Amino acid sequence: MQIEMSQPILAHNDRQATANRERLAAHHVYLLDLMASPGAGKTSTILATIERLAKRFNVAVIEGDIASDVDAQKVKAAGVPAVQINTGGACHLESAMIARALDALDLQALDLIIVENVGNLVCPTEFDLGENAKVMILSVPEGDDKALKYPAIFEISRAVVLNKVDTMPVFNFDEQAFLSSVAALNPQAPVFALSATSGQGVDAWCEWLAKQMQSVVG
Amino acid sequence: MQIEMSQPILAHNDRQATANRERLAAHHVYLLDLMASPGAGKTSTILATIERLAKRFNVAVIEGDIASDVDAQKVKAAGVPAVQINTGGACHLESAMIARALDALDLQALDLIIVENVGNLVCPTEFDLGENAKVMILSVPEGDDKALKYPAIFEISRAVVLNKVDTMPVFNFDEQAFLSSVAALNPQAPVFALSATSGQGVDAWCEWLAKQMQSVVG
Repeated sequence: MQIEMSQPILAHNDRQATANRERLAAHHVYLLDLMASPGAGKTSTILATIERLAKRFNVAVIEGDIASDVDAQKVKAAGVPAVQINTGGACHLESAMIARALDALDLQALDLIIVENVGNLVCPTEFDLGENAKVMILSVPEGDDKALKYPAIFEISRAVVLNKVDTMPVFNFDEQAFLSSVAALNPQAPVFALSATSGQGVDAWCEWLAKQMQSVVG
Repeated sequence: MQIEMSQPILAHNDRQATANRERLAAHHVYLLDLMASPGAGKTSTILATIERLAKRFNVAVIEGDIASDVDAQKVKAAGVPAVQINTGGACHLESAMIARALDALDLQALDLIIVENVGNLVCPTEFDLGENAKVMILSVPEGDDKALKYPAIFEISRAVVLNKVDTMPVFNFDEQAFLSSVAALNPQAPVFALSATSGQGVDAWCEWLAKQMQSVVG
């Protein structure tokens, strides 16, 4: 069952996304749309990424939340510009929200903007923000069957981060089953197993991201 | 930002929800709408609840998923009737989907139907299914700040289950901060800290649910 208004809404969103994309390209800024369930570790992955990439690139973060600014505060404490978007109930970010957030950032001074989307494995998949890539995080405690149950987000992600791998012994997570189900949906997407809090595996993810950025940032 | 069509869609949903509620009341069936993030442990909580309550009540389950029937298979393996709804992309269940699922169940023979909503802390909050109560599960790995970030679901829940409490030492979860933030939004809601897989705390949750059912089932 789909909400009937979705086609006009999506067409409007796509037009603004295209405008965002052209604006960012003109400034040589790479936009990453990071999606995940609530509590999968989006903010901690962003903080771990900033820690490694801020020496090489100028980074900013756009934080999307239904309510609160706790994540933006954490990012600002890491010394990086952060813009908080409160969706006021909406389950995803839209390109018009990103356009307003870009107005608040100095694009000329930036190389990379990481968007932390609203915690949700469903709604963000349908909305183009003007990003260069969508990437999703799944965390080990969520279980190894999530690609079967939420296929769309795995299909549209350029890469998949598997976070909290240090807790694999605690949970009954079948990594091989997970990797097979991801590969069946999206054979091109690399899967980066890491722990954002311990740092394990974060370097490989950051190297991949830096390589993706090359054609945009130069 | 809200989708403009939401008011007519919600009004239509509410009419069908009222019809569901009357139909269930006529058959003395209690309907529980169980909501949570992906991987918070909805299915394992349902299985632990069935294990304890199936001796006293006739239970069935309605499984809501974007895709797949892995959860319905698990419930059927526990010897309980299960109806799978695949929403085909929609991020929540609606009352019309529940109406069709009720057609597939023998209401005369049932006391309790547990609806496992789509894994999502946002969208299911807006849709009345005709339930007697909405209850949410938060799992410890998701973090202690979720009531600040997803307030609506905490506000509308009759009770809150805090699952995977056995993993609290692994994660940096501040239980007191979590309980305070829930109490600020919803002072009436009891919070049941439990582990659906180890069984710790499940009895208290089941006793509460059985008590809620009394006025309906008799």
